[in-house]
Amino acid sequence: MPSDRSDVLPVPGVRLGAAAAGIRYRGRDDLAAIELPEGCSCTAVFTRNAFCAAPVLVAREHLRAARPRYLLINSGNANAGTGPTGLEAARETCRVLAALAGCKPRQVLPFSTGVIGEPLPTDKLGSALPSLLSGLDEAGWDRAARAIMTTDTLPKLASHRLQLPGGPATVTGMAKGSGMIRPDMATMLAFVATDASLAPDLLQLCLDRAVAPSFNSITVDGDTSTNDACVLIATGRSRANPVASSEEGAFETLTGAVTRVCKELARAVVRDGEGATKLAEIRVEEAVDEREARRVAYTIAHSPLVKTALFASDPNWGRILAAVGRAGLDNPDIDAVRIWLGDACIVRDGGRAEDYTEEAGRAAMVGAEITIRVALGRGRAQTQVLTCDLSYDYVKINAEYRT
Amino acid sequence: MPSDRSDVLPVPGVRLGAAAAGIRYRGRDDLAAIELPEGCSCTAVFTRNAFCAAPVLVAREHLRAARPRYLLINSGNANAGTGPTGLEAARETCRVLAALAGCKPRQVLPFSTGVIGEPLPTDKLGSALPSLLSGLDEAGWDRAARAIMTTDTLPKLASHRLQLPGGPATVTGMAKGSGMIRPDMATMLAFVATDASLAPDLLQLCLDRAVAPSFNSITVDGDTSTNDACVLIATGRSRANPVASSEEGAFETLTGAVTRVCKELARAVVRDGEGATKLAEIRVEEAVDEREARRVAYTIAHSPLVKTALFASDPNWGRILAAVGRAGLDNPDIDAVRIWLGDACIVRDGGRAEDYTEEAGRAAMVGAEITIRVALGRGRAQTQVLTCDLSYDYVKINAEYRT
Repeated sequence: MPSDRSDVLPVPGVRLGAAAAGIRYRGRDDLAAIELPEGCSCTAVFTRNAFCAAPVLVAREHLRAARPRYLLINSGNANAGTGPTGLEAARETCRVLAALAGCKPRQVLPFSTGVIGEPLPTDKLGSALPSLLSGLDEAGWDRAARAIMTTDTLPKLASHRLQLPGGPATVTGMAKGSGMIRPDMATMLAFVATDASLAPDLLQLCLDRAVAPSFNSITVDGDTSTNDACVLIATGRSRANPVASSEEGAFETLTGAVTRVCKELARAVVRDGEGATKLAEIRVEEAVDEREARRVAYTIAHSPLVKTALFASDPNWGRILAAVGRAGLDNPDIDAVRIWLGDACIVRDGGRAEDYTEEAGRAAMVGAEITIRVALGRGRAQTQVLTCDLSYDYVKINAEYRT
Repeated sequence: MPSDRSDVLPVPGVRLGAAAAGIRYRGRDDLAAIELPEGCSCTAVFTRNAFCAAPVLVAREHLRAARPRYLLINSGNANAGTGPTGLEAARETCRVLAALAGCKPRQVLPFSTGVIGEPLPTDKLGSALPSLLSGLDEAGWDRAARAIMTTDTLPKLASHRLQLPGGPATVTGMAKGSGMIRPDMATMLAFVATDASLAPDLLQLCLDRAVAPSFNSITVDGDTSTNDACVLIATGRSRANPVASSEEGAFETLTGAVTRVCKELARAVVRDGEGATKLAEIRVEEAVDEREARRVAYTIAHSPLVKTALFASDPNWGRILAAVGRAGLDNPDIDAVRIWLGDACIVRDGGRAEDYTEEAGRAAMVGAEITIRVALGRGRAQTQVLTCDLSYDYVKINAEYRT
């Protein structure tokens, strides 16, 4: 993941900026904006948490009503669980930005991340907007990515250049997220832009495909946020031919690039999971269907016992087996299940693999990246989920978050 | 919960003992036995983890085949994930005990708790059996309760005396459990005995009713064990009239007493949850049905963010609201949801209750026992679930368990 701005390719026409509004943090940026060019396409997916935040409700409404010109993102305050006052606060920030920028309020999409249940200080946001708007820059990705961080320890950026018929195109994205991470049809906040040209329905299809194996296949703590959102922007400014159909090879190529950027960002979110010291990829194979594979993968990925074993670099495969056993499979056969830690087969024929050694297990667990592979012996479906370990620091960060 | 043996009433005819077999721990008992009198009724519920341990398979089989005379329980080794060798080891311990005690192997039920995936050292168990059997005593509850502990810091015992038509009766039980606690139709190991007289089918009904609001309504970490079992024994030795029908008031009275003992034990398990510093009761009311109420209650009870907030005594109600929102309710109405911490209403009308103060929230969180009450405003079903906080020590205990 490139965290150095020199690796991040600007997307022509997309300008970003940040400012310190003093919403919650002192001495750092906490407000970011993304300006989209006229005629730009933009689509988004949002949290499925039933109690979604005020900015999610407003962004959804505005996205249906108009083509966005500005995305406004604040950190430090989620504007969630804030009732009618919170809704009005989200609308107010859109009005203030629109007045300053000369567009309609419905052309502004608001996003918030931070503490739930505190009133959003709209006056502070409003005061910071003029300097924010005056500093918008195509090279502003890194600064904006830093402004939207909460418990994140690193900004998350990814960039990819691809060739399409007619010319090259760029895909660049940023994300934030570290805790309350178990995206459901969306993620924490992620913003991805390309200068390729796509019709709106194709843009949505591209985003849906990109989100499924990336943001929708990660977890830190199983808690789906009230504020998750992932936005995909297509400016159409590249020389590449417009993509007009999902049958075109160019659509596959572009979707592949967007997916790659989303996967890099999603991986960066888990790697920066609160207190995380290890990244674990849980691969489940030979399931009856993908739903079953995901159920098993998430049961392992969320198990506090598996996660503490990861933290301890302890090849405690009994905890993995117990998690598979409680995943609610219909009539599973323990004798058909095989489990690997890295390349070492640890479970076979209903018990510890006869050639398994504790040394091989430990060797597979010492690195910063660990692969747990489970073959269920029931079918052909498979999935992958990324998770992280559960460390002292996870407890520390979340016990001290509001204090 | 009485942890002092003087509070624990013996159940006439039921003798218990313990011995140090050196299975895993040094310098402490790790093997216990319960002797049941001839003609005694005994029933059990077991884990629904699909990959249940060898002793669970053997105990189920033996329970179907004969009336048990002995329960044999070891700690330090779960004999789970041990394949055919583990099954044979469980049978072997039953044979050795039966030969020494003069009964049939199928009259012995084996139980194991401890590390998953290690071979059970049957020779060590066998060597300890003669002294164990010679020390059986009706007053042996406390010693047996200590012998079956693993990461438990306290033995768990509960006792209750009741009046039935014809005479008094006693219900006494013991349990162990601290981690891998999210019982599903059973619990960690629990053994409850009464001297009342019940037909076997009534005994099963009594146990099912007692387990639902006790062991099946608690969680520590959401991980359902491979070895959960709860046994109910009825010796029929009291002067009380035999209970012949579930229509009798005596059945209700006895079931109430068994339920009370099970609830006390279940509460003791959560209070002694790995690393726990707080006990939290999650009450969900006004749900459409109990299934929905339980889904919401467990989503809150398992949320690492809620559990770390409990640890920090932080009234971070936004995390509770977010958990309700991701619990998968069909079309919930955030404006109808109300949430209380203790007696303080914290959420109403889609946001923070207008009369809520942070001081009231903190006051509700400082104690060792915290009640979180959620009213969904959708129906009349309700449930309660007990959980505990997530502390540094949970991570420490589980990161160091095998080392």
